[in-house]
Amino acid sequence: MRVLGIDPGSRITGYGIIEKIGNRFTHVDNGAIFTDSHDEFAIRLQKIYRGLTAVVEEYRPDAMAVEQVFLARNAQSALKLGQARGAAIVAGVNAGLPVAEYTAMQVKQAVVGYGHAGKDQVQQMVKALLGLPEIAQADASDALAVAICHANSALLRTMTGTLLQSNVRRRR
Amino acid sequence: MRVLGIDPGSRITGYGIIEKIGNRFTHVDNGAIFTDSHDEFAIRLQKIYRGLTAVVEEYRPDAMAVEQVFLARNAQSALKLGQARGAAIVAGVNAGLPVAEYTAMQVKQAVVGYGHAGKDQVQQMVKALLGLPEIAQADASDALAVAICHANSALLRTMTGTLLQSNVRRRR
Repeated sequence: MRVLGIDPGSRITGYGIIEKIGNRFTHVDNGAIFTDSHDEFAIRLQKIYRGLTAVVEEYRPDAMAVEQVFLARNAQSALKLGQARGAAIVAGVNAGLPVAEYTAMQVKQAVVGYGHAGKDQVQQMVKALLGLPEIAQADASDALAVAICHANSALLRTMTGTLLQSNVRRRR
Repeated sequence: MRVLGIDPGSRITGYGIIEKIGNRFTHVDNGAIFTDSHDEFAIRLQKIYRGLTAVVEEYRPDAMAVEQVFLARNAQSALKLGQARGAAIVAGVNAGLPVAEYTAMQVKQAVVGYGHAGKDQVQQMVKALLGLPEIAQADASDALAVAICHANSALLRTMTGTLLQSNVRRRR
């Protein structure tokens, strides 16, 4: 399955596409959409929407995954972040993708195996799991991490479904 | 000029379309998009996006206007509101509309003539200015108010531009 992970932000929206076949992850692409703070806010939201729509058209992922946000410095920054998330998520759902959310703890657990791992550990594990030559740009790395989390969870859901349905042995 | 005012929210997104010809306002339509809290958040954002896109296609406004938000109860509610705003604004800008923001004080000043007017006064003036048979649904009424604010400001901008360019007499 091919997953598009995103890390939306009003200034920088990271994205990462991974593919999981069997037990192996493959890195497909990652990058970031930068918006210009001098532009009108509506134009910046459109840039995020259009950028992600173009990524979806190019790589045709099966799902979009995004990290849940619980902490924001204050209401005003939460509003800005929310607007960017809204634009990004609508790009996914308008392209027909299911959109899943994961908590930061779920992402860390999936990538590092430890829910309280530090940011550095997550970035190193993303690099290692995907065989990247170097650590990806911070927002793109976070996007790859949530994509990995979704691919693992989706596999687990499929396996659970199989187990429930036919009680077969768990396969990887 | 025809203006679409919106009052986005994760539960209810109000909209109102008005037309200003010369010095007169005409009410075109108003309504609200309700999202179901049992639906996935991405589906709710898509409903806002699609609902407003349909409104734009039906009424072909010249501009979208939205009230700026400064107050939110807390960061979590600001994030939710921001997501709804992001989806709504992208619907406007993707349809080719310029999107303008106004503070609550600007809206009150434009509608009631007094920046500290109460919510009741604004609703009554919206009803009176547009000749509505009764006060519109609260979110739709707020949307009509910001549309009126934009129509007045845009007229002012046009007049100012005309005055600056050619020093001609003010026309209505």
